[in-house]
Amino acid sequence: MKAIEVLDDQQLQLTDAEKPQLKPGEVRVKVKAVGVNRADLLQAAGHYPPPPGTSEVLGLECAGVIEDAGDTGRAQGERVACLLAGGAYAEYVAVPEGQLMPIPDGYSFEEAASVVEVACTVWSNMGMLAGLEAGQTLLIHGGAGGIGTFAIQLAKHLGLQVAVTAGSEEKLNICKQLGADILINYKEEDFAERLKNQCDRILDIIGAKYLDQNVKALAQDGHMVIIGMQGGVKGELNIGRLLSKRGTISATALRARELEDKARIVRSTVENVWPLLEDGTIKHHIHAVLPLEQAQRAHEMLKGGEVTGKLVLSV
Amino acid sequence: MKAIEVLDDQQLQLTDAEKPQLKPGEVRVKVKAVGVNRADLLQAAGHYPPPPGTSEVLGLECAGVIEDAGDTGRAQGERVACLLAGGAYAEYVAVPEGQLMPIPDGYSFEEAASVVEVACTVWSNMGMLAGLEAGQTLLIHGGAGGIGTFAIQLAKHLGLQVAVTAGSEEKLNICKQLGADILINYKEEDFAERLKNQCDRILDIIGAKYLDQNVKALAQDGHMVIIGMQGGVKGELNIGRLLSKRGTISATALRARELEDKARIVRSTVENVWPLLEDGTIKHHIHAVLPLEQAQRAHEMLKGGEVTGKLVLSV
Repeated sequence: MKAIEVLDDQQLQLTDAEKPQLKPGEVRVKVKAVGVNRADLLQAAGHYPPPPGTSEVLGLECAGVIEDAGDTGRAQGERVACLLAGGAYAEYVAVPEGQLMPIPDGYSFEEAASVVEVACTVWSNMGMLAGLEAGQTLLIHGGAGGIGTFAIQLAKHLGLQVAVTAGSEEKLNICKQLGADILINYKEEDFAERLKNQCDRILDIIGAKYLDQNVKALAQDGHMVIIGMQGGVKGELNIGRLLSKRGTISATALRARELEDKARIVRSTVENVWPLLEDGTIKHHIHAVLPLEQAQRAHEMLKGGEVTGKLVLSV
Repeated sequence: MKAIEVLDDQQLQLTDAEKPQLKPGEVRVKVKAVGVNRADLLQAAGHYPPPPGTSEVLGLECAGVIEDAGDTGRAQGERVACLLAGGAYAEYVAVPEGQLMPIPDGYSFEEAASVVEVACTVWSNMGMLAGLEAGQTLLIHGGAGGIGTFAIQLAKHLGLQVAVTAGSEEKLNICKQLGADILINYKEEDFAERLKNQCDRILDIIGAKYLDQNVKALAQDGHMVIIGMQGGVKGELNIGRLLSKRGTISATALRARELEDKARIVRSTVENVWPLLEDGTIKHHIHAVLPLEQAQRAHEMLKGGEVTGKLVLSV
């Protein structure tokens, strides 16, 4: 089969590869479309190695058709979306059955392929871990990105007040159109001053650079969840301030979870989020679709920082 | 009435004071015994001011008899233990009804007065917030102190493996007798090396000084709860390491909680912990009982670091 390989100079190139073999409990999916994630950029740069025992090929989400159901009893030809530890930048990928999801009604392969990571990430952190409740205030950093746009819509549906940060008026306008209530241009304003002691929940992709400000912004009994470290890995934590608020900080990732844990998240996401995709409550925006062989160009676009919504590779 | 006053030189002295007036929903308790806490030392030194609207007098827990039931409908003469925001180093204290607890069967006023803070603290953090489950490993810092000895017994009852740190063989022996499985003298061994990636739960009273080591010791999906900062307020947090474990850090305190929140904790503690005190599953150890007028001496003993179990003032 064809698959994208990361060359020594970190360039991406389409090459021939072995079709993946199935382990017990896995199906082989013929990939139709792949979502591109920031984590793929990290992995291509050598910073985010795949968990032991998983594919070396990039690609954390896809949609396609079951080509070989293995020992699972699933139907050959079934259309599926897949949460993956890797392997989607290819014509075929092996998928543990617990990570298969139906294609949401009315969704194309491209739309389904690119909604899996964001839906599972936002739901597992905000729905399952931190718990969002009507009347709370949620702060979302990078409101106009893939995670941000999704989280704004989910939180507004659940009845929260939503504050966002972004780096331009254009991006803040996107957030506003999706329902965000408080818009902060981080280049012009200190979000921690504006939102001091007000944020019941924070969804953070920045990490170290925002740690102290996030603790300032937290409300009593607040819970911040860090899912990215675009602003560095080590930061000073003011435990005294956190304690005075009875605050909680979690840091999580999807990829290295046990199969059972992933299956639990996938089930809960399909149950709680798929209906919101199907009835249009949450709108999923694709920035562009490129053919798989242009994976290198897609990565460059994402690095450029001007992508709003998701990039998809079609296979 | 008589009450302890903190003089300008931070010495404690028995003086005359106004009997506390009742607000709606409060009862006045004639104090029989008061538990001494490290937080009282902090407050006497000017570092832990009482929450707005609460008594300036020291003392966070007591036991006694209801002298005036106010508008609550409680019975005059009822024997009660009390969780307080302050005011117990005195002959009388005003107590919100939600913070009254029965005296555990078989307990003296001295025993009841000195078990309230530790029981509510350990249960609210380990039972209600972090959740302890059989088979988990719990690390307790300061295993031989008031919090530590209580937490060891609770965790062993719930079927956990318990690791403790302490600063002497004598203290570690106390922990061992209470059921602790892994004994670490922090003066001789790095607990983070010994327990790397193994601790599902950590109950921490040290704060900044142990922050990085605690994150190292945390297991996958681990949760550490910081309830004290004997080792400082600001520490470096390795978010990358926390994220790789999907770890959670909470920092909490009882004193500044809303009345409703305290009442919720008190109810849950009485329901879940009182039976364990009454049937002897958890043994409560008093180090010494001194008369109220020797509060200064009691504080000096606690500062000295050689107290195992609780100090009590009798009124």
